[in-house]
Amino acid sequence: MAVTLKEVAELAGVSRSAVSRTFTDGASVSDKTRRKVEKAATKLGYSPNILARGLTTRRTKLVGLVSNNFHNPIFLEVFDQFTRKLQERGLRPLLVNLSDEIDPENSVRLLRQYSVDGVVVASSTLPPGFSKAFKDAGMPVVNSFGRYSAAPEFHVVGIDNVECGRMAAREFSNRGYRRVAFLGGPDTATSTQDRFKGFAEEAARHPQLEVGFSYAEAYSFEAGRAEMQRLLQRGNPAEAYFCGDDVLSIGALSAIAEAGLKVPGDIGVIGLNDMEMAGWQNINLTTIHQPVQQIINSSVELIVSMLEDPARYPEARLFPCRVVERGTLKPAPQSDPRSG
Amino acid sequence: MAVTLKEVAELAGVSRSAVSRTFTDGASVSDKTRRKVEKAATKLGYSPNILARGLTTRRTKLVGLVSNNFHNPIFLEVFDQFTRKLQERGLRPLLVNLSDEIDPENSVRLLRQYSVDGVVVASSTLPPGFSKAFKDAGMPVVNSFGRYSAAPEFHVVGIDNVECGRMAAREFSNRGYRRVAFLGGPDTATSTQDRFKGFAEEAARHPQLEVGFSYAEAYSFEAGRAEMQRLLQRGNPAEAYFCGDDVLSIGALSAIAEAGLKVPGDIGVIGLNDMEMAGWQNINLTTIHQPVQQIINSSVELIVSMLEDPARYPEARLFPCRVVERGTLKPAPQSDPRSG
Repeated sequence: MAVTLKEVAELAGVSRSAVSRTFTDGASVSDKTRRKVEKAATKLGYSPNILARGLTTRRTKLVGLVSNNFHNPIFLEVFDQFTRKLQERGLRPLLVNLSDEIDPENSVRLLRQYSVDGVVVASSTLPPGFSKAFKDAGMPVVNSFGRYSAAPEFHVVGIDNVECGRMAAREFSNRGYRRVAFLGGPDTATSTQDRFKGFAEEAARHPQLEVGFSYAEAYSFEAGRAEMQRLLQRGNPAEAYFCGDDVLSIGALSAIAEAGLKVPGDIGVIGLNDMEMAGWQNINLTTIHQPVQQIINSSVELIVSMLEDPARYPEARLFPCRVVERGTLKPAPQSDPRSG
Repeated sequence: MAVTLKEVAELAGVSRSAVSRTFTDGASVSDKTRRKVEKAATKLGYSPNILARGLTTRRTKLVGLVSNNFHNPIFLEVFDQFTRKLQERGLRPLLVNLSDEIDPENSVRLLRQYSVDGVVVASSTLPPGFSKAFKDAGMPVVNSFGRYSAAPEFHVVGIDNVECGRMAAREFSNRGYRRVAFLGGPDTATSTQDRFKGFAEEAARHPQLEVGFSYAEAYSFEAGRAEMQRLLQRGNPAEAYFCGDDVLSIGALSAIAEAGLKVPGDIGVIGLNDMEMAGWQNINLTTIHQPVQQIINSSVELIVSMLEDPARYPEARLFPCRVVERGTLKPAPQSDPRSG
């Protein structure tokens, strides 16, 4: 029943080699020939049979794109960028939803069943045990948005979360805040732990800063809103909050507005990510920009290089972050009164 | 180099049949045996080789999940639900990003190369020619969020967009608005055309309604904001806008707030989708709820049934929508003054 390359070549009136070249990435073939071959292939329902090729080359060109928090709007950008970059390389993203998964071995089974060439774990909250389990099962792995290590067990591409915490504390100090706090994501996430570590460390270097901290149940709007509601009901809230990420910040902003308080007049907020929505004028969140596009470009480069050389030594790549000034923190006082 | 089933059976101390059953969906195997087999398989790096099985059964269990507007937050829910439902059925979503694609034949080539068992086109804006091209290339197709047809050429699961337009016009009439308008997505999208058609038809039945219309360049925040800015600058805006979807509505709300106008006091807005974000208290959008979860459940059922019976006759399935009352339209006047 299967249509053969020979039949396509006959219908198209070209050589078998021309058909083969048409379906080989990077092979040379004229536009005219390509059009003839594609027309014939479509007519006959010919499939170049990457599956069979996969059995020979042991390559499927499938890359598992693993995530666990589809409700965080940052993933719109993450999925868009990853699919574009992988498609550009002739690779195909197999989307793996581990939202309710707690057992790394189940995930290994899932991915192994589908003979992926490699795995990109795009998450700052999935425990590192997952990436480790994929690696131990013999799969090339890149953990995007993962925890930095000086001696990584697998490729990690992301940001220096500790330094981001320091940046937030410095901003608070520079802008004259005194009672400040960290409103983190779940404290089981390495990103939460590292952001708080840097925040607390840097704050300790500024004696005027008084530091509180608490954790939301998830990196989600509802969790950020619920935690800020709790803080406001308890009374005596901080003057400014470093929220674990942008979606938590937006939840916190909602709770502040519902309580009849003003931002940044009554309470200041700084987030982390700089997702598209943070720049929407009705959100207008001051935040720490995470260079998502660079992280994804670099992650795709690494997974491609792993496919070529699976024994490649694991690297950790960090990209610098920066504060994006918008409307949710009060400005720094003029350092030079003459310029005012 | 490849590890065989026999080696796994020997290391696990079980029969070859037990190994085979462990890796066959739905086959019976005790938990104890399963654990032994999985341990041995992990140790040896055994892959159950779905690829080879795919060559025999001509099934890859890959389903192309095709989309073209990753920046619309509704897709967070769409991707989450589709991946969960497909995974539950033992199918795997291959994410295909057609954001910049205008040629259906390119997309056919992309999907054919990867021997997907079927294609779910999750888009209300990708031209119907794409689903048609996938079908003509012999792939089982379901178009989720597609245009209803009484004699569909491929499976369509979605909502009655014409009726949604009517609902918006009725809401405006009931609430006492007079000068109203449609702020649609791109007028090349069938969803835009149908929503406007119903809106204009129903409005014509209410002689007091005066109807305007215009189109944003995309279903995006920026496009909604830009179009509302243009309308406000032109002067004499409508009293209420039916925006093509929620993300356009949020953009329009931003422009209205930036112009110093109040919602719903000065201008009313109703959206369509009821995406998670519409319920965020700092958005609080009155909108028409599209039952995304039911649409996706039904789409997955249909694609599964197509895999079993590719000749299945195409169906169109419609799910009813309803208005979700929040804060962006003024309430209807009391119909019975005694109850006030």
